[in-house]
Amino acid sequence: MVTQGQVIICKAAVAYEANKPLVIEDVEVAPPQAGEVRIKILYTALCHTDAYTWSGKDPEGLFPCILGHEAAGIVESVGEGVTEVQPGDHVIPCYQAECRECKFCKSGKTNLCGKVRAATGVGVMMNDRKSRFSIKGKPIYHFMGTSTFSQYTVVHDVSVAKINPQAPLEKVCLLGCGVPTGLGAVWNAAKVEAGSTVAVFGLGTVGLAVAEGAKAAGASRIIGIDIDSKKFDTAKNFGVTEFVNPKDHDKPIQQVIVDLTDGGVDYSFECIGNVSVMRAALECCHKGWGTSVIVGVAASGQEISTRPFQLVTGRVWKGTAFGGFKSRSQVPWLVDKYMNKEIKVDEYITHTMTLAEINKAFDLMHEGGCLRCVLALDA
Amino acid sequence: MVTQGQVIICKAAVAYEANKPLVIEDVEVAPPQAGEVRIKILYTALCHTDAYTWSGKDPEGLFPCILGHEAAGIVESVGEGVTEVQPGDHVIPCYQAECRECKFCKSGKTNLCGKVRAATGVGVMMNDRKSRFSIKGKPIYHFMGTSTFSQYTVVHDVSVAKINPQAPLEKVCLLGCGVPTGLGAVWNAAKVEAGSTVAVFGLGTVGLAVAEGAKAAGASRIIGIDIDSKKFDTAKNFGVTEFVNPKDHDKPIQQVIVDLTDGGVDYSFECIGNVSVMRAALECCHKGWGTSVIVGVAASGQEISTRPFQLVTGRVWKGTAFGGFKSRSQVPWLVDKYMNKEIKVDEYITHTMTLAEINKAFDLMHEGGCLRCVLALDA
Ligand SMILES: NC(=O)c1ccc[n+]([C@@H]2O[C@H](COP(=O)([O-])OP(=O)(O)OC[C@H]3O[C@@H](n4cnc5c(N)ncnc54)[C@H](O)[C@@H]3O)[C@@H](O)[C@H]2O)c1
Ligand SMILES: NC(=O)c1ccc[n+]([C@@H]2O[C@H](COP(=O)([O-])OP(=O)(O)OC[C@H]3O[C@@H](n4cnc5c(N)ncnc54)[C@H](O)[C@@H]3O)[C@@H](O)[C@H]2O)c1
Ligand SMILES: [Zn+2]
Ligand SMILES: [Zn+2]
Ligand SMILES: [Zn+2]
Ligand SMILES: [Zn+2]
Repeated sequence: MVTQGQVIICKAAVAYEANKPLVIEDVEVAPPQAGEVRIKILYTALCHTDAYTWSGKDPEGLFPCILGHEAAGIVESVGEGVTEVQPGDHVIPCYQAECRECKFCKSGKTNLCGKVRAATGVGVMMNDRKSRFSIKGKPIYHFMGTSTFSQYTVVHDVSVAKINPQAPLEKVCLLGCGVPTGLGAVWNAAKVEAGSTVAVFGLGTVGLAVAEGAKAAGASRIIGIDIDSKKFDTAKNFGVTEFVNPKDHDKPIQQVIVDLTDGGVDYSFECIGNVSVMRAALECCHKGWGTSVIVGVAASGQEISTRPFQLVTGRVWKGTAFGGFKSRSQVPWLVDKYMNKEIKVDEYITHTMTLAEINKAFDLMHEGGCLRCVLALDA
Repeated sequence: MVTQGQVIICKAAVAYEANKPLVIEDVEVAPPQAGEVRIKILYTALCHTDAYTWSGKDPEGLFPCILGHEAAGIVESVGEGVTEVQPGDHVIPCYQAECRECKFCKSGKTNLCGKVRAATGVGVMMNDRKSRFSIKGKPIYHFMGTSTFSQYTVVHDVSVAKINPQAPLEKVCLLGCGVPTGLGAVWNAAKVEAGSTVAVFGLGTVGLAVAEGAKAAGASRIIGIDIDSKKFDTAKNFGVTEFVNPKDHDKPIQQVIVDLTDGGVDYSFECIGNVSVMRAALECCHKGWGTSVIVGVAASGQEISTRPFQLVTGRVWKGTAFGGFKSRSQVPWLVDKYMNKEIKVDEYITHTMTLAEINKAFDLMHEGGCLRCVLALDA
């Protein structure tokens, strides 16, 4: 069946309204325009950013939309002028674009490409400022420039990482968000050195990837902090060497960590999205050099605070998006690292389901036992 | 007259109570004990930290005390075991010690030596946990380990920088605090590169030294921000290329700077001590890489805040004390740079007075026209 140049009708999970169950619909996916790529998504995982926008708490969330941003698939067709991928290529869609031309990409200092943000931020494509998704002619918004809860999606060419075709797509879909975020927070944002002490707040996928990255960097102590002690057993396999449950202590958690480490840790990572934990993560850093990296995404409108003295006495407060990785350049490299068994991926997948079960998958996210749930879209 | 080993009686300005005029008294200065150095202070400047403690707002301030921490003098005598300086050496007392032995000094990551802090923080000397100052036998507290508002003072040997004896002490006394703080904020904390855009909030001595440091680092634009437009003329001589008075704008100052710079500056510096300006300084930094350095000291209990998104999208928030310079190692190097005309010092001195006029000098600090007022103690 020739699909190129045609509208494809396929299954997608549509979020019609905040907090209402997603609906599996037959969606029309228009052909890619200039600079666009249509991808057959084979596997997608769920991430907290999907749940956050779906919850209605994201003031920039637009409905109806197709959520999803941690996925892998195969290029179905490409629009005019697209040279770097072609039909049949195995790819990971990247919510963080990389155009290699904008002032961000050329700065050499950040992975936050500015090229298509004006469109992806409002749920449309750059070319005509319209959506490629519709149901009976009524447009459905894109999400994060990826919309992977659909059997086919259209993305900008600057948002597609071409990967090793040998890589199992049902695994490496995770390299579209959470795992690189944690690894990159350690390797790119903090640049943890061998022998460092590290505190990781929150032992979900992102926090575990931080632990894994810190172990690879040679950290001497990796202290995992979570209010759910069930996380600790798994966390050992990711490099966490000590555990602290804030609920077991009367003292503020920053004080507990400072006491444990003779003055504080060299590096800390907030992988929850809780502004008071972000403060604790900064304040448990060692005077003179401790660096705290915010990875978790807080709800809109919330603010972090601390005494400026914390910074004047040498602590550094920073953050990271997608772990600072340049998506098109470095996601393929991460896939290769996985293929060479240098980074874990399989171990983060606790559940697999089909697209039809997506609402159940969202429910799972609120349960302690779930790290990543991968949906098969072809099933 | 042999003074070594004897109590010296000399003039000092004593702060008996918060906010009450300093009193010029005959003070007894005990001989230095092991690891201590007695210095004849010839010139001292006034800095805001003196005024802050004197105001009573510093919860750690102890009275009666002898304030002062930006000075130069000549070693009068040394205690047992002191090897690095000897009587006759020209020196600058350093409130930021450098022992070269503690974990801070050995870290290679900070200038915040921990060796004598436990004593200097509570106004006494390490050796016997007592003060070397008294009036008719009643002890007077030390301040910041320096107490330079006295014709003689006793400091720890780890707090003495031996400098080029050719250097004019009436000028280089400024290298004990404000000027290095500004230069080092640029060179050590921010590491400003050639071509960068810089915003400096507050154009007092510290802010002007930031501008001077940024110019030396090759910054392409140095935007000076002050609510006192009278500062702008002087600031030109220190490298400021553009001026913004927040009072001339309805928009928040961070927005004004973002608009002026197509997205924000590469580096910003808060040189005031105002927590809402600290926020503005962070938020006027460019997404992806902008770094903001807190230099000003806020009143106790005040907090900084921002949305975590500011950091997640790549801004970095840090701070610096004494510009990150290692005092004993680098103050002599700064003196040499001054002697080689590579850094300004004279230009920051707007007033000179005698110790007897110290209360008038404090009044001057609140007037726009004063940068640094240097007191001659011998006069
Ligand atoms: N910056 C980025 O680019 C980026 C990318 C992906 C995800 N994220 C964010 O990272 C965060 C973590 O994602 P995840 O998928 O690992 O989430 P997750 O929900 O699986 O893990 C969070 C963990 O934090 C623990 N926790 C909750 N409150 C806590 C508290 N007060 N103290 C200690 N532990 C606590 C939970 O028990 C859980 O184990 C989310 O905010 C997500 O939005 C950011
Ligand atoms: N971190 C350190 O090691 C260190 C060392 C020395 C001084 N300091 C601190 O640096 C700060 C500056 O010291 P200084 O001697 O240059 O002080 P200063 O009073 O001479 O200069 C402050 C300047 O800020 C301006 N200003 C005040 N409020 C403002 C506002 N809202 N917006 C813009 N401008 C404003 C004033 O007009 C003035 O020109 C003080 O807080 C001081 O305590 C810190
Ligand atoms: Zn995600
Ligand atoms: Zn770009
Ligand atoms: Zn000072
Ligand atoms: Zn030391």
